[in-house]
Amino acid sequence: MTTVADNGVNVQALLEAREVLKGAPEAAQFTWRASSKWENGVHSSVKIQNFFGLGEEQNHKTEAVFDADHPEIFAATDNGITPIEYLLVGLASCLTAGVASVAQNRGIQLRSVESTVEGAHDIRGMLGADSDVRNGFNDVKVTFTIDADASRQEIEALVAQSQKRSAVFDALTNPTNVTVEVA
Amino acid sequence: MTTVADNGVNVQALLEAREVLKGAPEAAQFTWRASSKWENGVHSSVKIQNFFGLGEEQNHKTEAVFDADHPEIFAATDNGITPIEYLLVGLASCLTAGVASVAQNRGIQLRSVESTVEGAHDIRGMLGADSDVRNGFNDVKVTFTIDADASRQEIEALVAQSQKRSAVFDALTNPTNVTVEVA
Repeated sequence: MTTVADNGVNVQALLEAREVLKGAPEAAQFTWRASSKWENGVHSSVKIQNFFGLGEEQNHKTEAVFDADHPEIFAATDNGITPIEYLLVGLASCLTAGVASVAQNRGIQLRSVESTVEGAHDIRGMLGADSDVRNGFNDVKVTFTIDADASRQEIEALVAQSQKRSAVFDALTNPTNVTVEVA
Repeated sequence: MTTVADNGVNVQALLEAREVLKGAPEAAQFTWRASSKWENGVHSSVKIQNFFGLGEEQNHKTEAVFDADHPEIFAATDNGITPIEYLLVGLASCLTAGVASVAQNRGIQLRSVESTVEGAHDIRGMLGADSDVRNGFNDVKVTFTIDADASRQEIEALVAQSQKRSAVFDALTNPTNVTVEVA
């Protein structure tokens, strides 16, 4: 390479972190947190600010607040996107972060990375109209459009490697134990 | 009941929709969509506005835009919450919407519904530090605190029924097929 790719990802720091955490697994144990408050109807607001990691309490720079609701065609107030749409936000952004990180590591300069995500959902499940229909997505499709100093094959390899390491891709394609309790 | 519970959920409309969709499964096929744009580093922005359902194109009242990034301790810019935290936003809001809906259907007046969600995450997986560690959450715990005109047993039953019908709970606890392609 005659020019150095700069996608704004500090890959050196990530590679160093990987080496450090190999010998310090306890520091790699993170806890991400959200706190939710019912507003009215099916509208709620969810706050995120602090989390635990690297052995101590951590904070995002600012507190983020997200509204979730159902659309008007469900006789609701549409004061925010639906809960299941938040999964698409997480999936798209996780895979995009991965593409940028892998590209940086491989010395590939990105110019633009866009994606569309589509989640197919048969709402008879959650409505209880048909017990054979699952509540969640039937399937999800992500389509990337990437402009980079790389061949199509190299771009496809970026996306494949991002998928392989994606936290959200794993969380959606494999089961996770979720416990729900009343305090 | 001498007073009528009002949690702001139009349960009658939902019950009618359930009956209508039993005989019109094609109308129940929804497609939720997100479009993502890489900003810089691992920062991306994701837009949500339109979706397909009830046989035609639909729109949220307003377009919503969400930023995702990694925190400063990952040598990133923290211009938004992390992608995996968006899954917690979806989970908390989906279960909360369910609690409100089920309470309305059962004639239970809610006064407040709060929840905290904690997702345990060993980041060695996504960093590639240990191939035996998964990329996503190890497990997720949701804890509700609910003030309502109901016994503890009734409140626990509300939460259990919400979980049973939750789209996001299903999406996280059961596998979904996700395909990722380059256009």
